[in-house]
Amino acid sequence: MLNHRENAINYFDQNKNEYIGHFKELLKIPSISADSTHKEDLYKAAKWIVKYLRSIGIEKTDIYDTKLHPIVFGEYLKAGKEKPTVLIYGHYDVQPPDPISLWQSDPFSPIEKDGLLFARGASDMKGQLIASLSAIDAIMHNDDFPVNLKFIIEGEEEIGSPSIVEFLETHRDLLKSDFAFNMDAGMIAADVPTIVYGLRGLAYFEIHVKGPEHDLHSGLFGGIVYNPAQALCEILAGMKDKNGKIQLPNYYNDVEPLLLEERTELSNLPMNDQYYLDQTGVPELWGESGYTASERVGGRPTLEINGILSGYTGEGPKTIIPSWAMVKISSRLVPNQTPEKVHQQLLEYMQSHAPKNITWEVKPLTSDFPCVIGRDFYATKCFSDALESVWKKKPVYKREGGSIPIVSYMKSILGTESVLSGFGLPGDRIHSPNERINLELWNKGVQAIIHFFYNLSESSM
Amino acid sequence: MLNHRENAINYFDQNKNEYIGHFKELLKIPSISADSTHKEDLYKAAKWIVKYLRSIGIEKTDIYDTKLHPIVFGEYLKAGKEKPTVLIYGHYDVQPPDPISLWQSDPFSPIEKDGLLFARGASDMKGQLIASLSAIDAIMHNDDFPVNLKFIIEGEEEIGSPSIVEFLETHRDLLKSDFAFNMDAGMIAADVPTIVYGLRGLAYFEIHVKGPEHDLHSGLFGGIVYNPAQALCEILAGMKDKNGKIQLPNYYNDVEPLLLEERTELSNLPMNDQYYLDQTGVPELWGESGYTASERVGGRPTLEINGILSGYTGEGPKTIIPSWAMVKISSRLVPNQTPEKVHQQLLEYMQSHAPKNITWEVKPLTSDFPCVIGRDFYATKCFSDALESVWKKKPVYKREGGSIPIVSYMKSILGTESVLSGFGLPGDRIHSPNERINLELWNKGVQAIIHFFYNLSESSM
Repeated sequence: MLNHRENAINYFDQNKNEYIGHFKELLKIPSISADSTHKEDLYKAAKWIVKYLRSIGIEKTDIYDTKLHPIVFGEYLKAGKEKPTVLIYGHYDVQPPDPISLWQSDPFSPIEKDGLLFARGASDMKGQLIASLSAIDAIMHNDDFPVNLKFIIEGEEEIGSPSIVEFLETHRDLLKSDFAFNMDAGMIAADVPTIVYGLRGLAYFEIHVKGPEHDLHSGLFGGIVYNPAQALCEILAGMKDKNGKIQLPNYYNDVEPLLLEERTELSNLPMNDQYYLDQTGVPELWGESGYTASERVGGRPTLEINGILSGYTGEGPKTIIPSWAMVKISSRLVPNQTPEKVHQQLLEYMQSHAPKNITWEVKPLTSDFPCVIGRDFYATKCFSDALESVWKKKPVYKREGGSIPIVSYMKSILGTESVLSGFGLPGDRIHSPNERINLELWNKGVQAIIHFFYNLSESSM
Repeated sequence: MLNHRENAINYFDQNKNEYIGHFKELLKIPSISADSTHKEDLYKAAKWIVKYLRSIGIEKTDIYDTKLHPIVFGEYLKAGKEKPTVLIYGHYDVQPPDPISLWQSDPFSPIEKDGLLFARGASDMKGQLIASLSAIDAIMHNDDFPVNLKFIIEGEEEIGSPSIVEFLETHRDLLKSDFAFNMDAGMIAADVPTIVYGLRGLAYFEIHVKGPEHDLHSGLFGGIVYNPAQALCEILAGMKDKNGKIQLPNYYNDVEPLLLEERTELSNLPMNDQYYLDQTGVPELWGESGYTASERVGGRPTLEINGILSGYTGEGPKTIIPSWAMVKISSRLVPNQTPEKVHQQLLEYMQSHAPKNITWEVKPLTSDFPCVIGRDFYATKCFSDALESVWKKKPVYKREGGSIPIVSYMKSILGTESVLSGFGLPGDRIHSPNERINLELWNKGVQAIIHFFYNLSESSM
């Protein structure tokens, strides 16, 4: 079937501008799932995807409403029962673009510059989704499709996928497949094709601290009440020691130690301290003592402040003692931690550390479980070969610091393993201003996905 | 001159609604000095005051431009050289109304309810200013004015009066007077007329902490950089110990201890713990150990967070490590502390406590000196008698926790002592949502000011 592959890759190459044009259309829709004022844009993005799926030959498509943002389903089963069925997972929602002022171009007006395409969602993950759809279209134009396809494309990934569990639980037959294909994981560097076999989980909370009933004049009342911002700072400061160890009670009891084998493997990744210094721009790295940066990202848990707010933060001085303070804080989890236990540990910490002169509340916002995926799975092997065909080198296997809740849900609810990879880079500024994707890597990604479908088909012959 | 007093008080009483009408006109102008988008409103308020001064018989009026908001000057010298000249100080600017959502009515649409008048500036201090102007008008309608008057009414008090020093220094002759009359200090309770003889100073700063060059994905980079929000919390947490003692180096070296006499006097004020619990709504008071609440407010320094901001604080979760964090923090000073020394102490603290993995900057925003005013001053005595005439009891003498920079500037630049009092209450919610003034106290205040001018005139006969 070498001819088939070449035909599809050539067709893609000749029509690249048209594919990138579709990509830009999707990027223009501000489908920000965290912001309820954009609800209509989420629908618009879902409808755009349905239209695109139909245009590339996916005959059965549906939009399933949820309590929040709709899920797109698609199905193509013409390859026959002897061929595997791939469940292509994607999400069409994006992170908020804040802080807007740091963007050098409009986050929803994609522009190309020096081989990069800039827009919110370009890398995470509208670009990854469009890569798969472009590969499928290029094959369909020249050939019967070599495997069966199903699609599940959600609009709530960036807010912790609150509707997906119920959807998976109530649509087990509809979603039945041989494995899931998920390109939301990215690669280490442009010349390092990467397969992800482990993911950290997440437990995300808001803590609200309340002091006086209303903001107080800091002169008339300064010195007699516990300032809630001060209380929150003290609470947060106490959550880590000087060695970067998290101080929630019994936090490390469930943490599975890194195996020597894994530590060796992580030390072989092309991600040394200089790499992380370049990516982050900090003067010096910092973290849990006793572990390298790669080990900390791949295999150790974190507790990070994501946002904090109290009092007056506008222009000029305002002499108040704030009435309340709020923090968004989240923990990245590794096997065998659970979000529920971390929630409980946080509550215990607050009970013993919060001053009595204030009141407080912990609100869990979102959570998911950590997971590790089998590395010897046949579909992973097919994708590994596909990457090697394009990059002319074997991919590396990596445990990822991020959370992809759908991967653990697919496993626990549908019994479906995932092939996890992607063509985004750590420097793509996902979740940050000036998000971008490298278009050369995106092209290579489309080629690799074309190879992947044919590899799968051949492995089942 | 008893008849004169009664005539003026009766005239005021008969025309009260008209005076309150003028009061409301001024309250409707959103003269927020901290917010540069309101620059025109500051001008509007200044012009309104000039027009009002002219209407009540102050023939010489001027608006002096500054680099920021204009200063209103007025002069009435017809009482003759043998009569004292009173320099009436006021400010027409107000604090920002934030947080707007907690206001039960529009902050710039004054409404009366249950004897209270609600609006930003009602108590601090448009109401105090209009009380003096109403008293003057009521006298002028029935009599030649018994003393000479000068007016200095600024528009930058709420942002630390950045233009006033230069104005005082360059207009010493114009502002020459026997003493200043300043009603910006308030009273302890509705039945406790109050004269303030001491004020705390202020040193206000912003601290900016910078970590990674841009917000980072908390999964991909969580565990390897010092989170700037965490760093700022640790820095702030370390600034106070468990006994509420401020930990800036050598901070207490310059603090003048409270005299036993002052501690006794403060303990006699009708402001016990229950009073402060009621005013603040906190479950329990807190502060520097070894001092009562009254002592802490009146005679001990503070260090308070006025606002803090970092990362994502909108709706829903956003999984980032923020690039920067910012705090507004200020210290209330007592004799003999200086803002410059506290600035230096803060810098030293930052140098020894800020982690090396972040960069930081301290920006001084505004400052003024603490001061104590002589209690046996003749004009203070005249005002004390005036308060007694209306309230039928002697006023209490109090050291105030707030800062009124103009009082120390008047003293150091013009050599002019101040009479410091006012008719606002601690529960007026100045600087907070739903600011208000008690109209019965405001009426009594106008009557007291009428008595005061006649007392002054008689003391010089």
